[in-house]
Amino acid sequence: MIRVSIVGASGYSGVYLMQALLSRPDVSISVITSNSNAGKKLSDFFPLFAKTNHKNPLLSEIKFSLFDADLIGGSSDAVFFCLPHNESSKLIPAVLKKNKDVKIIDIGADFRFDDVSAYEQHYGKHSAPELNGGFIYGLSDVFYDKIKNSQLIANPGCYPTGALLPVLPLVFKECVDFSFPVIINSLSGISGAGRGLKLQNLFCEIENSAKAYNVWTHRHLPEIKEKIKKAGKLTPDVIFTPHVIPVSRGILTTVYLKLNKDSTMENIAGIYESFYSGSPFVSILNNIEDCNIKNVVYTNNCHIAFEIREENAAGSAGLMVKIVSAIDNLGKGASLQAIQNMNLMFGLEPDFGIPQYSPYP
Amino acid sequence: MIRVSIVGASGYSGVYLMQALLSRPDVSISVITSNSNAGKKLSDFFPLFAKTNHKNPLLSEIKFSLFDADLIGGSSDAVFFCLPHNESSKLIPAVLKKNKDVKIIDIGADFRFDDVSAYEQHYGKHSAPELNGGFIYGLSDVFYDKIKNSQLIANPGCYPTGALLPVLPLVFKECVDFSFPVIINSLSGISGAGRGLKLQNLFCEIENSAKAYNVWTHRHLPEIKEKIKKAGKLTPDVIFTPHVIPVSRGILTTVYLKLNKDSTMENIAGIYESFYSGSPFVSILNNIEDCNIKNVVYTNNCHIAFEIREENAAGSAGLMVKIVSAIDNLGKGASLQAIQNMNLMFGLEPDFGIPQYSPYP
Amino acid sequence: MIRVSIVGASGYSGVYLMQALLSRPDVSISVITSNSNAGKKLSDFFPLFAKTNHKNPLLSEIKFSLFDADLIGGSSDAVFFCLPHNESSKLIPAVLKKNKDVKIIDIGADFRFDDVSAYEQHYGKHSAPELNGGFIYGLSDVFYDKIKNSQLIANPGCYPTGALLPVLPLVFKECVDFSFPVIINSLSGISGAGRGLKLQNLFCEIENSAKAYNVWTHRHLPEIKEKIKKAGKLTPDVIFTPHVIPVSRGILTTVYLKLNKDSTMENIAGIYESFYSGSPFVSILNNIEDCNIKNVVYTNNCHIAFEIREENAAGSAGLMVKIVSAIDNLGKGASLQAIQNMNLMFGLEPDFGIPQYSPYP
Amino acid sequence: MIRVSIVGASGYSGVYLMQALLSRPDVSISVITSNSNAGKKLSDFFPLFAKTNHKNPLLSEIKFSLFDADLIGGSSDAVFFCLPHNESSKLIPAVLKKNKDVKIIDIGADFRFDDVSAYEQHYGKHSAPELNGGFIYGLSDVFYDKIKNSQLIANPGCYPTGALLPVLPLVFKECVDFSFPVIINSLSGISGAGRGLKLQNLFCEIENSAKAYNVWTHRHLPEIKEKIKKAGKLTPDVIFTPHVIPVSRGILTTVYLKLNKDSTMENIAGIYESFYSGSPFVSILNNIEDCNIKNVVYTNNCHIAFEIREENAAGSAGLMVKIVSAIDNLGKGASLQAIQNMNLMFGLEPDFGIPQYSPYP
Repeated sequence: MIRVSIVGASGYSGVYLMQALLSRPDVSISVITSNSNAGKKLSDFFPLFAKTNHKNPLLSEIKFSLFDADLIGGSSDAVFFCLPHNESSKLIPAVLKKNKDVKIIDIGADFRFDDVSAYEQHYGKHSAPELNGGFIYGLSDVFYDKIKNSQLIANPGCYPTGALLPVLPLVFKECVDFSFPVIINSLSGISGAGRGLKLQNLFCEIENSAKAYNVWTHRHLPEIKEKIKKAGKLTPDVIFTPHVIPVSRGILTTVYLKLNKDSTMENIAGIYESFYSGSPFVSILNNIEDCNIKNVVYTNNCHIAFEIREENAAGSAGLMVKIVSAIDNLGKGASLQAIQNMNLMFGLEPDFGIPQYSPYP
Repeated sequence: MIRVSIVGASGYSGVYLMQALLSRPDVSISVITSNSNAGKKLSDFFPLFAKTNHKNPLLSEIKFSLFDADLIGGSSDAVFFCLPHNESSKLIPAVLKKNKDVKIIDIGADFRFDDVSAYEQHYGKHSAPELNGGFIYGLSDVFYDKIKNSQLIANPGCYPTGALLPVLPLVFKECVDFSFPVIINSLSGISGAGRGLKLQNLFCEIENSAKAYNVWTHRHLPEIKEKIKKAGKLTPDVIFTPHVIPVSRGILTTVYLKLNKDSTMENIAGIYESFYSGSPFVSILNNIEDCNIKNVVYTNNCHIAFEIREENAAGSAGLMVKIVSAIDNLGKGASLQAIQNMNLMFGLEPDFGIPQYSPYP
Repeated sequence: MIRVSIVGASGYSGVYLMQALLSRPDVSISVITSNSNAGKKLSDFFPLFAKTNHKNPLLSEIKFSLFDADLIGGSSDAVFFCLPHNESSKLIPAVLKKNKDVKIIDIGADFRFDDVSAYEQHYGKHSAPELNGGFIYGLSDVFYDKIKNSQLIANPGCYPTGALLPVLPLVFKECVDFSFPVIINSLSGISGAGRGLKLQNLFCEIENSAKAYNVWTHRHLPEIKEKIKKAGKLTPDVIFTPHVIPVSRGILTTVYLKLNKDSTMENIAGIYESFYSGSPFVSILNNIEDCNIKNVVYTNNCHIAFEIREENAAGSAGLMVKIVSAIDNLGKGASLQAIQNMNLMFGLEPDFGIPQYSPYP
Repeated sequence: MIRVSIVGASGYSGVYLMQALLSRPDVSISVITSNSNAGKKLSDFFPLFAKTNHKNPLLSEIKFSLFDADLIGGSSDAVFFCLPHNESSKLIPAVLKKNKDVKIIDIGADFRFDDVSAYEQHYGKHSAPELNGGFIYGLSDVFYDKIKNSQLIANPGCYPTGALLPVLPLVFKECVDFSFPVIINSLSGISGAGRGLKLQNLFCEIENSAKAYNVWTHRHLPEIKEKIKKAGKLTPDVIFTPHVIPVSRGILTTVYLKLNKDSTMENIAGIYESFYSGSPFVSILNNIEDCNIKNVVYTNNCHIAFEIREENAAGSAGLMVKIVSAIDNLGKGASLQAIQNMNLMFGLEPDFGIPQYSPYP
């Protein structure tokens, strides 16, 4: 039995972790925290859990607690952190102090950067830089080998997950011509903004609308950039534009890349198929229209499709490819990838207990 | 291993059955039919199944077939029918002829009525009236005992499921004052209309709209009426108004009932709790606002909440209660209740392999 | 030129008033207030007004002010109040003191009740009971004659507008059998809850959901009840159930009524046609499915359709009719009906400057 | 009185034209055609027109007719064509033959290209190439001078309108560095696909989804390219990616451009302000998040906002700007721009009778 605690369990990624973990026979929930809702019963706060008591009467009593490092450290084999940035790094040291072997999966941004100074430039002063080197970047379908042997995982951001899964294989295989920027245009569901009370997240404000935001300054840009840089040889120019569209969940990412001259539909397809042949979650589709949010929502899947420009007119930028990826921002982009990482860290199959297919429609 | 076939697998209830069954280790898919898509690969037609091949390479080859009674009868322990009314009753006799022990779960309307003439009044000539008596009405959380020993199940309609789960316990316990009609006001998601090409189901036609339809004549009214009548002593006056609202899935049902004089919040709550104490899927909530579609969508759960009118002014209709229920029309209202029935028929726990909680938000 | 001020101009009904009035050649805007946004430019706060300066350069400078009774009274021929209940009654006396002839249209609840004690039972202590008798209930298409000669208008609630327009004609014409309650089942868009920051109004919380709320206690029930009572002979039993559905705007109301024995489709249709023959906004449709939110949204129209139950089985409640009405809660249910009232008060055609048709789709 | 006919009046752009024109005191409707709905009354087909008879009893009788060139030519001062491509070019010659002075506004694609061969490459054989030279490209806010004196207008495509309004001023002013492609990433509402019965336009298929389509081959690409080429000196490399998102209406366009070295936020803003100073419809916003669909929907407005990249890292593509524009695809992108063109052709103010502001929310 894996004893699990969740720190910050009343937000969207926390509740989705609960939803996924409560069904597992091999997991027991030790502590769930929510400082603002401490003392409330989970099933009162989230009535979707109304029948938590059926299989396990103890579950009907599960309540949010205040954070208590000793309690959590002492009762957990794995702890998920679902907190705003700069919060987990304040709490993790105390949990590790209590239990030096506890596995940590941080869904927040604090330990995603190799380069602490890049983190600090965009997020402010880091609270535990001494721990940063111990964290592995948890892009599971790419770095599964490292993840298997690690204790500390920094779960990737949602946009970076949607961008890196289609881009990294081509960078590793040296197909990208970096004389042209890597342009990443992403459309995100509203849940990406969390459960906080903000005017722009009201139904009436975003329904039947769409907008771009933080067009040059989104904090996920340096994360994407660092991982592409590390995978390639050169410092890439990465341009990233996030948008919100009126869906609850999902990220559709359209990437514009310049390919090396000899790239063809066939060899790009081959690279992807080979790169992800061992992944139960990443699929390459033939038809770009099939690569949509509906086909991956509520799963840990990532669908990828691409098309190389055939016509190559004068004045052209060169051999351009458009790659589209679709993920669920709370699934693959947060909680389910976190569980995939947990599975790997505990020596389980990566897809153990993770829903395989979207519930269509 | 339960060998399962699905007749009519390319509609919304068929694909949702596939989605739920493909993850089960104890189920193998024998035949899936779609006359209009015969020969197409499942994963081409529904790209959400792009990774069907991961665990079981044979699945990557699964294709829609034409209906073939001998093939299906010979290779199946259970057959689901997901067809328009009057279709399954033409096909089931031949399947039973080939395999007299095969279990049948018909998601269509053909065998839902005890009274064939009531069926024929609303649906037209019945094609297999001689089989009708053998079918059990598969409202699983109410009739589980009968279902356990049965071979042939008529899965309830979606609106009847949402209406009968809150109403029947009060009828069985003789709490309803039938001098007043049972008024059922239901709001359904668009998937209730199926995947057919109809103008009124276009996004632009129903998004940001809502309407009532078939206000006195919906075919689910006689189904609801027959089941209430059978459970009670008198012929009830049932008034049913279906509406469509712009959600993909879900039915919210608001029932107006007159209660017997001595009913209280406490004893009604007690009746529900006791009636559904053994059900892993039906929950009674305290707060009517919590009883919403979001909390049950993509599950087999039914949430119920109610409030008795306190003020009892002159001219009043009497001791009125409003009961609200929420279900997923394709889950509890179709495919997942069908799997619950299959579980019962095969001696399994009713909730085996059925997702327990909605993936929030 | 009608000089108009709007008190509470930064909420949904206020901004919609602005949107409708700014296009009118015969109206000039004097003062718009918003205590929380005082000093901000309208076009900065609501970028939809980006081109306010085109026709009238002064408009580009329009800013929200703090409330100032003397300024408003001295510069306005008409003042709209768009405030939470119990607010306008505190402010109106001072405006009238400054300008005893100013016309007032209160979109809030403060003066909607003939019976102040009924108001106080549901809304708390009234701040200006001495003014209450001077207000006319502004259900324009019914009470236009009284409105024409009045100075003070209480604009009806959104749900009452959707309920009373279909119900009152039948009450006036004595078609309703009050031995049965008047049951009103309403579905409202989210904007009915205003622009405040509440968890339940977040996109992710209500999208793809629906729920009932305040099922026996909504404050619009006593308003509906008083107006039906006044129109009929008896104290009616009115049952009202509000729901929210995931649309921004619109109210669909389904009314269940018992009719007197001799009512027919023809004579009910005749009553409606005759009652609303002079109204440019209320239409009777033949088909209930056509009576939907999409066909009236963004207008001041009210569509009504109805169907009498033909089958009249034993145990029946009698000659039941279902009536459906559709309005825009912010249009007919608030700001556009307020403008209709203003038109009438100033001797203009009721539909002057009011958009006639929904922008489909 | 301008006598107007609409050919193809039962689709989304046709009905929206009707909605806008029926309110005008200076316009009378002569003929509306719909071959598939000939003989049906407008108000039966589109119940939103239920009160057409109020102001003008004749309107209550308006019916769809079959196309009849002589009838239309003989009774119209202006004719709008709202047809699939390759249809209007078959019909316009006969209308002109009957009435050589009739003004034509073609909302379809047939006459949008200067270069007939470019048209034919993407749309097939042109049916009236001899007329092509007489048509003016009706991008009203840019080419108003030419439009004023013209008889024949080719109304721009919806995507080209959203792309060209932000791009052309910078091309005319020679700010664009064409060594880098013009990258246009557009998000469109579903109404862009018309009212036809296609699986992908069903509510359940697109709600809560998003996808890219025709990523290298959309027919609006050559239209955009020709107009940029004509405005600039060089043959540009234009990359265009259309997406659909779950809104009924609206197009959000994100443009990636390389600017000449000396461009600054200030001078780009100055170019836009000066270019559109005379336009009542195009606004430049300071904040990219304000530039969203909600703020322009149901209007003829185009909002534009932009941001130049400050950081200019090594490996960078150069001085990049992101420009976002928002329009209503059926308003500015079709019917309202068509009316703006009609206004110009008849010597009226461009915004006469056109709604100025979005009905928020």
